[in-house]
This record gives sequence, C-alpha cells and structure tokens, in this order.
Amino acid sequence: GISASAAAAPADEPIQVIKPAANINLGLVDLGKKLYFDPRLSKSGFISCNSCHNLSMGGTDNIPTSIGDKWQQGPINSPTVLNSSLNLAQFWDGRAADLKEQAGGPIANPGEMGFSHTLAVQVLETIPGYVREFRQVFGKDKIDIDQVTLAIAEFEKTLVTPNSRFDQWLLGKTDALSENELAGYTLFKESGCVACHNGEAVGGNSFQKMGIVEPYKTKATAGGRADVTGKDADRFNFKVPTLRNVELTYPYFHDGAANTLAEAVDIMGRLQLGKKFTDAENAKIVAFLKTLTGDQPSFALPILPPSSDTTPRPQPFSK
Amino acid sequence: GISASAAAAPADEPIQVIKPAANINLGLVDLGKKLYFDPRLSKSGFISCNSCHNLSMGGTDNIPTSIGDKWQQGPINSPTVLNSSLNLAQFWDGRAADLKEQAGGPIANPGEMGFSHTLAVQVLETIPGYVREFRQVFGKDKIDIDQVTLAIAEFEKTLVTPNSRFDQWLLGKTDALSENELAGYTLFKESGCVACHNGEAVGGNSFQKMGIVEPYKTKATAGGRADVTGKDADRFNFKVPTLRNVELTYPYFHDGAANTLAEAVDIMGRLQLGKKFTDAENAKIVAFLKTLTGDQPSFALPILPPSSDTTPRPQPFSK
Ligand code: HEC
Ligand code: HEC
Ligand code: HEC
Ligand code: HEC
Ligand SMILES: [Ca+2]
Ligand SMILES: [Ca+2]
Ligand SMILES: [Ca+2]
Ligand SMILES: [Mg+2]
Repeated sequence: GISASAAAAPADEPIQVIKPAANINLGLVDLGKKLYFDPRLSKSGFISCNSCHNLSMGGTDNIPTSIGDKWQQGPINSPTVLNSSLNLAQFWDGRAADLKEQAGGPIANPGEMGFSHTLAVQVLETIPGYVREFRQVFGKDKIDIDQVTLAIAEFEKTLVTPNSRFDQWLLGKTDALSENELAGYTLFKESGCVACHNGEAVGGNSFQKMGIVEPYKTKATAGGRADVTGKDADRFNFKVPTLRNVELTYPYFHDGAANTLAEAVDIMGRLQLGKKFTDAENAKIVAFLKTLTGDQPSFALPILPPSSDTTPRPQPFSK
Repeated sequence: GISASAAAAPADEPIQVIKPAANINLGLVDLGKKLYFDPRLSKSGFISCNSCHNLSMGGTDNIPTSIGDKWQQGPINSPTVLNSSLNLAQFWDGRAADLKEQAGGPIANPGEMGFSHTLAVQVLETIPGYVREFRQVFGKDKIDIDQVTLAIAEFEKTLVTPNSRFDQWLLGKTDALSENELAGYTLFKESGCVACHNGEAVGGNSFQKMGIVEPYKTKATAGGRADVTGKDADRFNFKVPTLRNVELTYPYFHDGAANTLAEAVDIMGRLQLGKKFTDAENAKIVAFLKTLTGDQPSFALPILPPSSDTTPRPQPFSK
C-alpha cells in the first residue's frame, strides 16, 4: 500500500526539490570549465581542480584524504563540488564565504596545487587561447586572479544535480521510490536526521558538532569551526555535508574514515542521536540515501588551449 | 601567387589525409572510455590513463617525463595517444605490438599505475555498474584483463584527429594554408624530413636512429629499439613520432628535453640531416607543423559507476 509519506504534500517535507542552475553567464562558465580542468594552474602541471573533485566520480577523489603536490597526504577529506553553490559557506569549517573566495585557496596551497596566484596568472597570460577568451569574457586587456576565481565559481554554479528519484517523488511521481526507500525516508525524518540534513541540499546549511551524544574518535587534527571563530563552543563543529549524491562521495566524514554508507549511518545514529539502528533499519536509510543521486553534470570534455613558447613550464620535480 | 605545392595533386604528396575511425564497436568504445578515465585501475585510486595522456591536452601530460604512482619520476616522455592506432607498434621502442597489448602495461607498471591485473579485475568485479556493462558488451559472466585492454584499445581507435587545415588543403581547399605555411611544407619535403615523417600520421611507421649526422646528447638512459631486439644496430633507434597535433605535444623527443617546436626542428635539421635552418626557414616549418592540428576528440565526460561496499579501497599512501 501507499505509505503516509508517499501521500504527503511535498510542501510539508524538510527536503526541497533541487533546482537547475539559473542566471548563468555561459561565456564565463565555458572559461571556468577549462580552468577547472587545467593542471597548468598547479606547480607540477599535473593537478587540476578535477584531480581532487573528479566530475566523473561525484565531484570527489574517493580517497580518505587528498593527494596533493609531490604526493603530499592532505589533512582532510575532499568534499564534493556538486551542489556546493548551495552551501552557507565553503570548506568543512566554513572559512571561505563563497565559491569565488574558495577557488583562490587550492591554487596557492603548498599541499594542494603548490603554486601562487602570480605564477598562475603568468601562465595564463602567455597562452594565446586564454588571452583571447579572457578578453572576450571580461573585455579587459589583463588577466587577474579575480577573473580566474570568478570564472571557476560560475562553472561550479552549474554543478547542481537535479532530477534524483527522490526529487521526482517530491514532485508527485509516487512510484519513483520503493516502499523500502520510503520507509528509509520515514526513519530518516522520525529519527531526527533532518534536524541537520534538510533543505535543498539535504545539508550544507549549518555547522554542527560532530559527536553530540558520544565523542567521535579520529586521528585527524581538524578543529572545525573553532579554527575560524576561535570560540571554544565551535570546537569540532563542521559544516553539515550535503547528502545529495552521497552514494558517490565515499569515504565519509571529514577524516574519510567511514568506508561505507552503512558505517556512516550507524555512526550518525549513535553519535548524533544516541540511537542504535538495527541492520534492517540501517539498510532502509541507506536505500533512501541512494535515491538522492541526481543527474550528474553532462558536458563535453573541455579542450585546453596550448601553451606558447614563452609559457613557464611546469616544475613537477624541483624542490 | 599559388605555389607549386598548392597546385600539386594530393595523390603525389608524401602525407595522406587522415581518415575518421571506422568499424568501431560503440558498446566497447563506451566501456573503454570509462576505463580510460577510471583512476581505480591504479593502486592509489588517483591515476588514470587520462592523467598521463590527457585528452584535454593533445593526449599527453606536457611534462618532460611522467609522474607515476607516489610521484615517481618516469624515465621517458609520454607520447600522445591521438592517432596511436596508426603506429606500426607501441612505445618509443615498439615493444608492444598493438594498442591492446600496450594497454596492459601501465596498469601493472610499478612506476606508473602501480597496480596488478588481478587487483584491477577484482576492483571492477565489485562495481555493479561495470559488471552489468561488461556482461552486456562481452556476454560473459566474468571480467578478465583481456576484456579490459580490448575495450580501452577500442576506445583509443576512436582518437583520430581528422580535418586539420593541412588535410583540408590535401583535399583541395587551396586557401586552407597560408603561403608561409606552404613554404614550410615545401622546406619540410625538400629538406628530407619526409623520409621519416610521412604517411597518414606523418610518422609512426618506422624506427629510426636519433642522431644520424651528429649524436644526440641526453641524460635519459633509454636504449631505444635495441632494448627490444638486442641488436647493436638498433641502438638509439626510436619509433618516429607522429607529427599530427605536434603543436600540442610539447615538450619534444623521448626525453622531453626540447621545450619548443622551434628547438625540435632545429635539432632535427642538424642531427638528422646535417642542415642548419635559418630562423626564417625554421619559422616556416613550425608554421607548417601547426597546420597538422586536427579535430580533437569530442565526447561527454564519462560518468563512472560507483564502487560498492566490497570494492577494495585505493592505497595511495601505503608502502
Ligand atoms: C589536492 C586536492 C585538491 C585540489 C587540487 C583542489 N581541492 Fe578543493 N578541496 C580539497 C579538500 C581536501 C577540501 C576540503 C578542505 C577543508 O575543508 O579544509 C576542498 C574543498 C573545496 C570546496 C569546498 C566544498 C565544501 O563543501 O566545503 C570547493 C568548492 C572546492 N574545494 C573547489 C576546488 C576548486 C575550484 C579547485 C581548483 C581551483 C580545487 N578545489 C582544488 C581538495 C582539493
Ligand atoms: C546534530 C547534527 C546532525 C544530525 C542529527 C545528523 N547528522 Fe549526519 N552529519 C552531521 C555532521 C556535522 C556531519 C559531518 C561530520 C564529520 O565529517 O566529521 C555529518 C555527516 C553525515 C554523513 C556523511 C556525509 C559525508 O559526505 O561525509 C552521513 C551519511 C550522515 N551524516 C547521515 C546522517 C543520518 C542518516 C543521520 C540520522 C541518523 C544524521 N546524519 C544525523 C550532522 C548531523
Ligand atoms: C604514469 C604515466 C602514464 C600512465 C598512467 C599511462 N601512460 Fe601510457 N605512456 C606513458 C609513457 C611514459 C609512455 C612511453 C613509454 C615508452 O615508450 O617506453 C606511454 C606509452 C603509451 C602508448 C604508446 C604510444 C606510442 O606512440 O608509442 C599508449 C597507446 C599508451 N601509453 C596508452 C596508455 C593507456 C591506455 C593507459 C592506461 C591503461 C596509459 N597509457 C597509462 C605514460 C603513462
Ligand atoms: C632519419 C629520420 C628522421 C628525419 C630525417 C627527421 N626526423 Fe624528426 N624524428 C625522428 C625520430 C626518430 C624522432 C624521435 C627522436 C627522439 O625522440 O629521440 C623525431 C622527432 C621529431 C620531432 C619531435 C616529435 C615529438 O613529439 O617529440 C619533430 C618536431 C620532428 N622530428 C620534426 C622533424 C623535422 C622538421 C625534420 C626535418 C628537418 C625531421 N624531423 C627529420 C626521425 C627523423
Ligand atoms: Ca565565512
Ligand atoms: Ca567524502
Ligand atoms: Ca612530447
Ligand atoms: Mg626501452
């Protein structure tokens, strides 16, 4: 039979339908897409945004903590860029206000792309194809890092994933979800998960403590939101991750320590809610979470303009 | 005025028009494309074929010698995969007979993807999306490495680059090349470059000694064809690289030591032909070579099927 949830009006639900990107500047998006895929924004010439936020794999690297310049082991799990425009702030601790502010970070981070803004702009300025495209898009003669981060951020705005089976159900297609999946959604709501995971992105809209009922044990050293605010009350508060496409963004948590959704759901139940789910309950919630996988970004692999004779060459092996 | 070359019938030319890929199995290509982009074929989960043969960048990494597992410095320059189906054999020394034989190499090479065929197949067998697709394509219940390399090779067959301006000229569009470019082509023919760089791929169809008139000085240790045949006469013989898309495949030579086309052309003239080109002649040849850039592969970024709970996880930092 049809469950109570299936009959509920979408307006009552704590999760909202995800909307396709709107008000997008297509010229800017096209330029930003190239930059997102261009490893010449890194010192080595080997690492692009897409290396750690692989759009073939849910916008993550599926590694516990990232590999950066010279194979350095990163301190924290790479979050998905999918639907990141919906976040209240960027990074696990929210230290960047928005995508444009965020995009400047990794280029100059010694543990990620290992480059500098000045060098990145120098590279771009010697690539005739980029010079032409920046001029077309911005109508200016000189490239600067603000243009670079603005273009990347505009591209990222297009990385929303509408049309998940859950969204179809929200929109009234009652047979889009199985009974098992609907039962999982009911558990998700009634257990209190929606207190933190709600809204269009099913997360991303608040900072919350990891380990409310029981402390979370980790070898990672991230202090969470307190690293930004300096306030003790914010210690171990992290931005609640979006659960959109969570099927694709393993491993889980800021330290990437949970390999499977079953493990993550079990830990969330116990640590955040003091609730031990049975295996059957856990499986239902996991089945529901998998209905949040939406249409993945679909576009042609960008072809990058070639370097010129004067373009500074990558330095993958220099000290 | 129209030069002699412009008036010549294409049939007389030592370079032939490149043909689009034919007799392609589309199901196989689609599977092979996913595998080509899948870093789970590497130990680290970070390196795919596309890392070193980036199809956004002419099918190479644009680094003198490649970066492999754990940031190991490779011994030799990564050749383009574009038009590699036209090669008489694969690798600089021709040690693989064809693309299928080649594709097994990097997965198990400790300095490249650092994995093993058994482990790669184990990973694929635990990914439901792959299990389904392999079964559809091969009609068999088990995945094996032969299927993997066959699919990748079939995808690579599609990576031809027709419709370069030079091909348009060969096909009779006399204004497809400038006078300067045509003069470069005439120099390329009359100087003797076409002795080695000819045919559909403008190379790729013979092994030739690097440094005929004058020895080539390099820190690289590759012995060339002699490493395969054991014959002294083959020492420092390398497969002549294709000059298709050579504008995109910098740096040049098996050691990646020449940063620019001008440098490569100068070295070729002196070492292979005992000929010192003037700057003007060199520039004309370079202008001609840039007309060999064809249509780059155009396809949607593949979306990879997610791992399951039982998929062995990548080991980027283990010894
Ligand atoms: C070497 C790996 C690596 C590279 C390269 C990299 N990132 Fe990240 N990215 C990360 C990690 C790890 C985090 C989380 C850092 C944190 O929260 O402290 C992150 C965070 C982000 C976030 C915030 C998402 C959220 O939900 O908070 C965005 C957006 C993002 N990166 C986009 C980019 C862009 C754009 C580029 C290229 C200019 C890029 N990244 C390059 C690893 C990487
Ligand atoms: C009090 C707030 C709160 C509640 C309640 C809560 N979560 Fe979370 N959730 C978080 C925070 C914060 C994180 C990130 C923690 C970290 O990475 O250290 C998280 C992470 C997750 C993740 C991992 C996402 C990823 O990409 O790493 C999953 C899955 C998840 N929650 C599901 C659930 C489920 C299911 C419930 C209910 C049983 C639940 N959450 C209840 C705040 C909450
Ligand atoms: C770590 C870098 C790296 C990775 C990963 C890599 N390659 Fe290569 N590839 C190279 C290098 C370097 C060579 C030249 C080796 C030689 O000639 O000895 C090469 C040679 C080739 C060739 C021969 C081209 C020619 O003209 O001779 C083909 C084809 C090829 N690779 C395809 C692939 C495929 C398919 C994969 C993935 C299964 C792959 N490569 C993974 C670096 C890499
Ligand atoms: C006797 C044979 C021979 C002749 C003649 C010859 N080449 Fe080459 N060419 C080669 C070989 C072999 C290589 C690869 C050498 C290496 O990498 O060590 C090569 C490499 C090149 C490259 C670099 C390609 C790459 O992707 O690395 C260019 C450019 C080139 N040749 C252009 C020319 C030009 C222009 C001429 C005439 C001035 C010429 N060649 C004459 C055999 C020849
Ligand atoms: Ca902020
Ligand atoms: Ca994750
Ligand atoms: Ca090269
Ligand atoms: Mg060799």
